[in-house]
Amino acid sequence: MEVEQKFHMNKGASESSYAQNSRVQSKIISIAKPVTEEAIIEILCTNLPESMGIADLGCSSGPNTLSVISEIIDVINSKCSDLGRPPPELRISLNDLYNNDFNDVFRSLPAFYNRIKEEKGAGLGPCFISGLPGSFYGRLFPSKSLHFVYSSSSLHWLSQVPPGLDSKASIAMNKGKIYISKTSPQSVLDSYFLQFQKDFSLFLKSRSEEVVPGGRMVLSLMGRESMDPTTEESCDHWELLALALMSMVSEGLIPEEKVDTFNVPYYAPCAEEVKLEIQKDGSFIVDRLEVFEIDGDGGGDTLSSGQRVAKTIRAVAESMLESHFGRDIMDDLFLRYAKIVDNHLSKTTTNYISLVASILRR
Amino acid sequence: MEVEQKFHMNKGASESSYAQNSRVQSKIISIAKPVTEEAIIEILCTNLPESMGIADLGCSSGPNTLSVISEIIDVINSKCSDLGRPPPELRISLNDLYNNDFNDVFRSLPAFYNRIKEEKGAGLGPCFISGLPGSFYGRLFPSKSLHFVYSSSSLHWLSQVPPGLDSKASIAMNKGKIYISKTSPQSVLDSYFLQFQKDFSLFLKSRSEEVVPGGRMVLSLMGRESMDPTTEESCDHWELLALALMSMVSEGLIPEEKVDTFNVPYYAPCAEEVKLEIQKDGSFIVDRLEVFEIDGDGGGDTLSSGQRVAKTIRAVAESMLESHFGRDIMDDLFLRYAKIVDNHLSKTTTNYISLVASILRR
Repeated sequence: MEVEQKFHMNKGASESSYAQNSRVQSKIISIAKPVTEEAIIEILCTNLPESMGIADLGCSSGPNTLSVISEIIDVINSKCSDLGRPPPELRISLNDLYNNDFNDVFRSLPAFYNRIKEEKGAGLGPCFISGLPGSFYGRLFPSKSLHFVYSSSSLHWLSQVPPGLDSKASIAMNKGKIYISKTSPQSVLDSYFLQFQKDFSLFLKSRSEEVVPGGRMVLSLMGRESMDPTTEESCDHWELLALALMSMVSEGLIPEEKVDTFNVPYYAPCAEEVKLEIQKDGSFIVDRLEVFEIDGDGGGDTLSSGQRVAKTIRAVAESMLESHFGRDIMDDLFLRYAKIVDNHLSKTTTNYISLVASILRR
Repeated sequence: MEVEQKFHMNKGASESSYAQNSRVQSKIISIAKPVTEEAIIEILCTNLPESMGIADLGCSSGPNTLSVISEIIDVINSKCSDLGRPPPELRISLNDLYNNDFNDVFRSLPAFYNRIKEEKGAGLGPCFISGLPGSFYGRLFPSKSLHFVYSSSSLHWLSQVPPGLDSKASIAMNKGKIYISKTSPQSVLDSYFLQFQKDFSLFLKSRSEEVVPGGRMVLSLMGRESMDPTTEESCDHWELLALALMSMVSEGLIPEEKVDTFNVPYYAPCAEEVKLEIQKDGSFIVDRLEVFEIDGDGGGDTLSSGQRVAKTIRAVAESMLESHFGRDIMDDLFLRYAKIVDNHLSKTTTNYISLVASILRR
């Protein structure tokens, strides 16, 4: 699949939409909130700009998108009020890939503008919200135009399936698996790590040209605590999805080579791997880098844990699974997946590990 | 209807979509092309900016949207090459109302970027295209951020149906009509003119804060040659659509009061009316203001003139008609409309009058 052009969270507001199934991502936003607040306050206290450029990279659609923006505006307004200074003009850019449901986000803007005007009243400065589609693994914004960059639950998606592992590769390196697994050969681990390094360093290089000196980034992404990339905490979701796919292979519903040639464009790094790339790039200083464990369970519905995991993963991964395996098998696949997760049931499948980094542009 | 939140060109790529029925608007873009080129060249020759802000207000969706941007980039690149100067960084904003099909535009961006990279090669400067939803009858962009503002076939749409003429008015002022008509009372003419003045002056005031001194605007909009707002050239399309609606009233398919309380949020000004508002505002100087007649006929299809007019008007007006009369009558309405236009057949229904203004920010 061409990630840049085709990958997207599930659109609309149906039962399998991302809008209806983004509670885990919402929890990650909440967990990172104090870090976000701290970073913004640092920017405002160091050098309050007249016009402030803000970008949310991987903004997606659904309720999370504008709740993040609302939080950011809140912090800026209340801090400016504390400082007795008028709030800056805000230039807010929402970024995601070309196929993101920007229409959904834009349709909810009039109500959003009305709400913040009501809440903030006269204290609200001018605020211009735009959508900027494209891959954040490359330049997106004009030079030195951003003061604060935010990205939540996005940077674990790679720009592509590592070369040699994608569906066009001549030899299937990762038979029966779709991500790094305990049984994957070392070459698979190396390919994934190399792709992560390539992508994350390009991300940093691109942002270093766009963020003003003294500007900041708060990045959260799926990760792992262990140095070992094959541990359950970072592999289990994909390991069990591969099991569901292989159960369909064994029943003749999918050709085996289809699974052998599918791998996810995803990498869950550990904190050290993230830190290393930031140091190599040299334009940013790591202020904070923390690891959080997010409980994916709970939420007042009657779903089993497996069903809940299946809905969460389906909402984010269906576009790429569908593009490779076809639409027809999706319902069956995620029914099987939910059952496998319920049978397996361990903390590593119902929980998610998120890294949160706060980074300063030199 | 709440114009700002609900009005949009017909989405998608179906037979009645705007993408398939925007040939008249495409002709207007072509006719204004020399004026657009001249304005951009003036900007570049007077004071070549390092970073150039460009906005297309009422960008819509379909093939016209990016063809305009392509033209603008072409002119900038070839002029910079003539001048022996590197092209500026381009910040291009596509603006339309919240319900515009931005997804359609964004999906075609990867192919667009590839094409311009191939065509321009190394001569192409950095180019960042974003979507900014909202009404251009109000602030949209940061202060002094734009060098060139373009708007084609959009400014004839008012921000609202003139008060007193909308569906909530207690007395129907414009019985059996949906726009200014020969039989409309003077109060209808006054209401429309007042709304145009209010909207257009707010447009100018908003842009005057956003456009840098020496920046330019090229605006094309539907208009009329005569000072009299009731002449056929500017009224016939709506006059005949009212006839189609009234034929449905006479057959009991629509309640009469539904038509009496519907009026279009549209005004086709004459050049003098446009000039007057620009003079009153005082921030801009009119460089050129021309009137063009566009032949709506021809195009290699087998449609009758009436069918062609019906498709053109349906693609732009269906969202507001549907919101007032319901979806069910749309097919019937436009079949009747096509027949009425074919029977009436005169130049004033198959042709369209467009004003093109080139304006300099003092």
